[in-house]
Amino acid sequence: MPILVMKFGGTSVANLDRIRRVAKRIGVEVAKGYDVIVIVSAMSGKTNELVGWVDEISPLYDAREYDAVVSSGENVTAGLMALTLQEMDVPARSWQGWQVPVRTTSAHSAARIEEIPTDNIRAKFAEGMKVAVVAGFQGISPEGRITTLGRGGSDTTAVAFAAAFGAERCDIYTDVDGVYTTDPRISPKARKLERIAFEEMLELASLGAKVLQTRSVELAMRNKVKLRVLSSFEEQSDEAGTLVCDEEEIMESNIVSGVAYSRDEAKMTLVSVADRPGIASIIFGALSDAGVNVDMIVQNISEEGRTDMTFSLPTDQVKRAEKALAETHEAGNLNYRELLTDLDVAKVSVVGIGMRSQSGVAARMFRVLCDEGINIKVITTSEIKISVLIDRKYMELAVQALHDAFELDKLT
Amino acid sequence: MPILVMKFGGTSVANLDRIRRVAKRIGVEVAKGYDVIVIVSAMSGKTNELVGWVDEISPLYDAREYDAVVSSGENVTAGLMALTLQEMDVPARSWQGWQVPVRTTSAHSAARIEEIPTDNIRAKFAEGMKVAVVAGFQGISPEGRITTLGRGGSDTTAVAFAAAFGAERCDIYTDVDGVYTTDPRISPKARKLERIAFEEMLELASLGAKVLQTRSVELAMRNKVKLRVLSSFEEQSDEAGTLVCDEEEIMESNIVSGVAYSRDEAKMTLVSVADRPGIASIIFGALSDAGVNVDMIVQNISEEGRTDMTFSLPTDQVKRAEKALAETHEAGNLNYRELLTDLDVAKVSVVGIGMRSQSGVAARMFRVLCDEGINIKVITTSEIKISVLIDRKYMELAVQALHDAFELDKLT
Repeated sequence: MPILVMKFGGTSVANLDRIRRVAKRIGVEVAKGYDVIVIVSAMSGKTNELVGWVDEISPLYDAREYDAVVSSGENVTAGLMALTLQEMDVPARSWQGWQVPVRTTSAHSAARIEEIPTDNIRAKFAEGMKVAVVAGFQGISPEGRITTLGRGGSDTTAVAFAAAFGAERCDIYTDVDGVYTTDPRISPKARKLERIAFEEMLELASLGAKVLQTRSVELAMRNKVKLRVLSSFEEQSDEAGTLVCDEEEIMESNIVSGVAYSRDEAKMTLVSVADRPGIASIIFGALSDAGVNVDMIVQNISEEGRTDMTFSLPTDQVKRAEKALAETHEAGNLNYRELLTDLDVAKVSVVGIGMRSQSGVAARMFRVLCDEGINIKVITTSEIKISVLIDRKYMELAVQALHDAFELDKLT
Repeated sequence: MPILVMKFGGTSVANLDRIRRVAKRIGVEVAKGYDVIVIVSAMSGKTNELVGWVDEISPLYDAREYDAVVSSGENVTAGLMALTLQEMDVPARSWQGWQVPVRTTSAHSAARIEEIPTDNIRAKFAEGMKVAVVAGFQGISPEGRITTLGRGGSDTTAVAFAAAFGAERCDIYTDVDGVYTTDPRISPKARKLERIAFEEMLELASLGAKVLQTRSVELAMRNKVKLRVLSSFEEQSDEAGTLVCDEEEIMESNIVSGVAYSRDEAKMTLVSVADRPGIASIIFGALSDAGVNVDMIVQNISEEGRTDMTFSLPTDQVKRAEKALAETHEAGNLNYRELLTDLDVAKVSVVGIGMRSQSGVAARMFRVLCDEGINIKVITTSEIKISVLIDRKYMELAVQALHDAFELDKLT
C-alpha cells in the first residue's frame, strides 16, 4: 500500500468536533487505498497552558523537565484521534514519540530527529491497521528522556516520517489553504500558488510567512519529500492547497513567486568605528557570543579611517545586542561614537527561483519603491531573494506595489 | 541513605501554589537525610476532563487508547514538581511510568504492577539526586503500551515503590489527616487513630472509608510496608497522621477500632424460590456472570420446600441484577414468586483486630441497635468485622450509638 503522511495543527484538533472532522478527512484517504500516518499537535491552547506553568515555576527551567511537561498535549490528541477513528471503524492506534521511537539528539527543547525506525508501524500496517496516529513535536534522547523539537516541530515530525517511510506525499493541514503570493490581509490581490519550489518556500518560511517550520522545509528538500500545504477547514480535492516540490516539477517558474515581509526587525548603527581589519569580526563576534541573530549587514564608505556599521536583527534581541556592544566598547576593544537603534523598520522581500536566470529584478524592485517615495535603508540579496529594510509605515504600501509590479495576481 | 516514599493526591497538587507547598514538605524530609521517591497524581480535575473526552468519543472505547490519554495528567504534575524542587535547590528529576519502567500486566485500565526495577533510580541517587518524582497510576505493558492501574492507583504505585526500594516508610498525603474511628461528619466524637492494623484498614477501605485504595493496603500488608496516612494541608511532625502497620506493632489492640458505613447498598429478595440443592448456585452464578458483586447473603428458613433468598449489592448494580435474574426466571431455571428491591438500606460495620480474642462483640452490637429500636435486616461477619444492613434513615444513629457504646472516643 502507498503511504500518506497527514499532519494536523493545534487549531485543526482544538476540540472533539474538529477532531471528528479531521478523522473523516483521514477516512477519505484510507478509502483511496492509503496506509496513513497522522501527525498531531496538541489541542490549541494546551501547550501554552503548560509552558505558562513551567515559566511561572522557574524562568531558568531544566529543559528536560520542560520537555516532559509540554510534550503531554500531543499525547492526549494522539489517543483521542485514534479513538475517534476506531469509532468510525477505521483501524487505528496511537504512538507516543518514545514508542516509535523517534530518536533525537539530546538538545532539549530544540532537538533534531536522528532516526525513525519503521518496523514497528509497518508491522501493524501489515496486520491490517490503516492509520498510525503519532504525537508530533516530540522524541526520545539517547539517555531515554523525552525531547521536543521546538515550536512548529510537528511539521518536522511529519516530514521526517514521510522521509523514513518513503511516503507518496506529506500533507500539512493548517488554518490557511495554501501558500500565497503575499499575505492576503495586506494585498487583497494575493493569489494562492499551486506549486512552489523548496528553495522559495525556505526563503518565505525564514522571512516570517509562518505556514511551515523552516526546518521541515529543509528536511523535505533534502529527502525529496513532496509537501502539500492545505486547509483543514475546507472540503479538499486532490489538487487543493499548495504543493512544495522540486524546481523541476514546476513547469514554468515565475521570476518572482512571492512578496514576503517581516515586522519584527530592528536596525542598529554603530557610528564612527575604526575602519581597520578585524573590526567586523570584533562586532559580530561579540553579537554572536550574546546569541544575537544578525540578518543584514551594511558597511558605509570609509571617511578618514572611520566608518559606520549598520545591521538588522530581530526586535526582541535588541536589548541583548546593546548590552554586548556596550561591554565590548567599555572593554576598549571597540571604539564607537554612538550606537543608534531604530525599531521603526520592516523588511520586505521578493522571492523567486526565476531570478537565477533573469536579470534586472533588483533594479525593477528599487524603481518601484522609488516611484512610491520609499527610502531603502539596507539591502541584501541571495540567489533567489532580494530584501530591503524600509520605514515600517511604508511596509503595506511596498508589499502592494511590488505585488502589482511583478503581476503576481496573474497566472503565468 | 534511607529511602522514604511520599505520595500526593490530586487536591494536594491542584495548582502551582499547592505544588510549592508540597515541595517544601518534601524538602523537610530531604533535610532529614532521606533519599525521597515522590509519587504524584494528576492535578485535581485533569483526569476527569480527559476521561470525559474519551467517554464522549466512544462509550465502548479501546482501553489501550484510554490509558494513553488519561495517564498524561500525572506526567504533567511529575515534571512541574521536579522543576519546583529544582527551583528550591533540591536535586530532582521526573520519571514517567515507562521510563522506570513500572512493568504491569496488560489488563488496561485495571493493570497490576508486576515489577519495578530499581537500578535506574538508585544510580541517580548515588550521583547525588535527592528526589525521584514518579508519575503515579501508570505503567507499561509487556507489549510496550501505556497502562493505568484504575482509580486511586497512585496509592498502589506508592506502596509498590516502597516495597521495591525497601523504603523506611510510605507516607500517603491526602486531604484528611489520618484514619478515624468513624466519619467525623457523622460523629463529632470521632477520634484519629495513631495506629491501625493492615487487616483493619483493609476492612475499612473495602467498606467505603475512601482513604486508601484497597489494593494498596493489601500490597503493603504482603510486603510489610509501613504506611502512614496524613494531611498535606497541615504542618506535620514525625508522629502525625495514622500509621497502618503490622498487628504486632500495635501495643494494645482495641477490641473495636472503628465504625464504618456505606450508603451505596441495596437489598434484593427473591421471594419463594425452590429450596433444593443447586438453587444458590443458579442465582449467584447468574449474578456473577452479569458482573454483580454480591456482598451479604441470607437464606430464610424453608417452609414447604420453598425459601426466600436475600442479598445485598452496590446500588448501581441493581438494574443489572434485576435483568440477570428476570432472564434466568424466564429461561425456566429459576422459579420465584416475586423479586423485591429495597434501595433504602445502609451497611454499618464494626471493625477490630481485638475481636479475634474477645467474644461478645456481636451480641453487644445487636443490643445497642435494639436499644435504639433499629431493626437488623441482614448480618455478616468476618474474623475482625461484623456488618449489618439496616434502614438507611437509621444509619447516622447507628454509627453514633456504636461509637459511644464501644467507647471509641476514649484512648485505650
